[in-house]
Amino acid sequence: MKSLKCEIVCVGTELLLGDILNTNVHFLTKQLRELGISVYYHTSVGDNLERIKEVFKDSFNRGMDLIITSGGLGPTDDDITKEASALYFNEKLVLSHACKVHIEKLLNLKGEMTEANLKQAYVPENGEFIINDNGTAPCTIFNVKGKMIINLPGPPKELYPMFEKVKKYLEKYTDYKYYSEFLRLTGITEGEINKDLTDLFNNTSPTLAPYAKEDDLVLRITVKCKSEEEGKNLIKPFKEKVYSRVGQFIYAEGESPIEELLFLELNKKGYTISFVESCTAGMVASRFVNFNGASKCFNESYVTYSNESKVKNVNVSKETLEKYGAVSKETAEEMVKGLSNKTNSQVCISITGVAGPEKSENKEAGLVYIGVKVLDKIEVFKYNFIGNRQRVREKSTFKALFNAYNMLKEKGEKL
Amino acid sequence: MKSLKCEIVCVGTELLLGDILNTNVHFLTKQLRELGISVYYHTSVGDNLERIKEVFKDSFNRGMDLIITSGGLGPTDDDITKEASALYFNEKLVLSHACKVHIEKLLNLKGEMTEANLKQAYVPENGEFIINDNGTAPCTIFNVKGKMIINLPGPPKELYPMFEKVKKYLEKYTDYKYYSEFLRLTGITEGEINKDLTDLFNNTSPTLAPYAKEDDLVLRITVKCKSEEEGKNLIKPFKEKVYSRVGQFIYAEGESPIEELLFLELNKKGYTISFVESCTAGMVASRFVNFNGASKCFNESYVTYSNESKVKNVNVSKETLEKYGAVSKETAEEMVKGLSNKTNSQVCISITGVAGPEKSENKEAGLVYIGVKVLDKIEVFKYNFIGNRQRVREKSTFKALFNAYNMLKEKGEKL
Repeated sequence: MKSLKCEIVCVGTELLLGDILNTNVHFLTKQLRELGISVYYHTSVGDNLERIKEVFKDSFNRGMDLIITSGGLGPTDDDITKEASALYFNEKLVLSHACKVHIEKLLNLKGEMTEANLKQAYVPENGEFIINDNGTAPCTIFNVKGKMIINLPGPPKELYPMFEKVKKYLEKYTDYKYYSEFLRLTGITEGEINKDLTDLFNNTSPTLAPYAKEDDLVLRITVKCKSEEEGKNLIKPFKEKVYSRVGQFIYAEGESPIEELLFLELNKKGYTISFVESCTAGMVASRFVNFNGASKCFNESYVTYSNESKVKNVNVSKETLEKYGAVSKETAEEMVKGLSNKTNSQVCISITGVAGPEKSENKEAGLVYIGVKVLDKIEVFKYNFIGNRQRVREKSTFKALFNAYNMLKEKGEKL
Repeated sequence: MKSLKCEIVCVGTELLLGDILNTNVHFLTKQLRELGISVYYHTSVGDNLERIKEVFKDSFNRGMDLIITSGGLGPTDDDITKEASALYFNEKLVLSHACKVHIEKLLNLKGEMTEANLKQAYVPENGEFIINDNGTAPCTIFNVKGKMIINLPGPPKELYPMFEKVKKYLEKYTDYKYYSEFLRLTGITEGEINKDLTDLFNNTSPTLAPYAKEDDLVLRITVKCKSEEEGKNLIKPFKEKVYSRVGQFIYAEGESPIEELLFLELNKKGYTISFVESCTAGMVASRFVNFNGASKCFNESYVTYSNESKVKNVNVSKETLEKYGAVSKETAEEMVKGLSNKTNSQVCISITGVAGPEKSENKEAGLVYIGVKVLDKIEVFKYNFIGNRQRVREKSTFKALFNAYNMLKEKGEKL
């Protein structure tokens, strides 16, 4: 199987000043991956002829076959990506009549074209070009002795549709694509998983890669293949190996966030859910509602930040608060019971904890109790989270949704 | 004036597979700019020892003095940025007892440390390191014959606070710094402000740059200077010009988020605040609590997502809901009145709206009513926000906090 080795080069001083976030490189990377073209490097460089040319030289010296550039094709003097490409290949740029006519039409020009715009109508003498339906700069393609540079426009609304056309051009250079599956784990650290799966991480096909997401740990399994179906088949036995080692930590496959998984479980059973939150203060409810359609199983929720509010809204007893404190198993349990009585929701969640950074009730920051009630069954989970105030609250939010999802699934399996 | 030439190198195969958008490079670029360090190149490279080393070689060959890396400092075998840096400089990595103790503490380890985690405790024999308060990987610094590599962790939650410490280290390598001030505006678009301030945007010192934040529009005024005091003096007359043109839209200076501004106003007056949220579903309360100390003026809050819950919890009348709908001025007003009766908070906020993407009650997505009650005064604000579900809810959250802040300040001024 042949595969092009590619470097994406983004050109523009604004990138190096931090004025804009580079979303083009992300877009191009994903697109190229699907085409089966391996991206080895991303580079950003300013609007400087010599430096751009040197970047091309370094790239081909690194063994790349293909450089895809974005940016620097505009009409102004500092737009020089095409010129740097021509300079690198020692290739002449010649006026394209077709490009000139397109620019005249697009700009609705009556008289003479400015020199700046005319510059955009120049294309490589021995290369190819693709007219830009959404702008004046054509895509220019240099292809010299097995080295290729493709210049794409920088504005996303020109780049995206142009890449659709470039795909057709590139398809003849690739035989296969990449297919990936994702496993989501919780309750295991990156260090531990490395120990358990060392040999699998060293496997060459499929490849296995871990990455830590905000909430959980994700394993990505990837294979080169001719089709999605072939990919699935190639991945299957490898995935089974992963399950045999760390299956107890895998709570889902795919890319759905926890609020979506929970919503689907609730919806399947026709249940409603409510929350009573102390340290998270609405974060759990708010995240649950991220998922469009939440109203089908969500009616109301409470933020009981003070002790008084816990008594008033969900009937926690003053004695419990005095004896065990607001951050305790007992309070979490009374909160979730009180919530259940108040709302009649089949699934109820309570969260009480010390978000930090200071201690509270002489308890350490990061100590969090989560109560989950599914029908008549109550469980209280205890955590000692690490991180700043916001992180503790985010981790609590994930675990609250996760535990409810988990208990709901168990319930489902047992019935 | 001397200035370091810097290349930012992001390490991680996930970048080259398009799994994640590279926001780290954007963050680092902006930070370095303010330090007066010129960024010449961005490069991303996969988790491959030889390739990372070659990238370092190319970078120093390009004339860089400083390489800042992010990513590849984790415990797994494919985390090798530090190792590649050591390899490039032919520098030995040695175990740091301080790092080992920090990791043990952070992971709450009782027994033996895994080899994977122990790896993170290694630092350059002749270099420096900085303990990572938010993770197990220290920042490692190689500084050999005028060439410097600084390795930073990849997760933003670790990278951002770590960079604050690296700043102190880098300051000794630059003679001048950039000093910036920020003006926060709301109620004016980027297009409008561009028209009003065109000449000021073209000014060379101080420079003026607009950028749209999540919530509002921020103007950054920046000068090169030797000290903060000099910076302030240089900026002062320029800032006055900005005020004379668009002063009516400036609601604050500095970088404090709206929840902090509101908290400070509440605290000054000894008031408490409560929320009753429909479409935002806890997002306002959750954001308010971001600010440490919120418990001083926040006791309780309600999420009334369904109509029944609005009746039950804050006494909205069924007639109002039937006649005007849940998303109406009238409902917003009854919600905030009911909340006030229920909580006795001096400041009460209600939010009801159509988060979308579909219409609701035949009202367009993005229609949001926000009721604010400060002591006896009630105002209801109406918005037609543009954006997806999440964006509409975020914009509602900002405006809820902003309007309360604004009414509180007015109140303060009038008394």
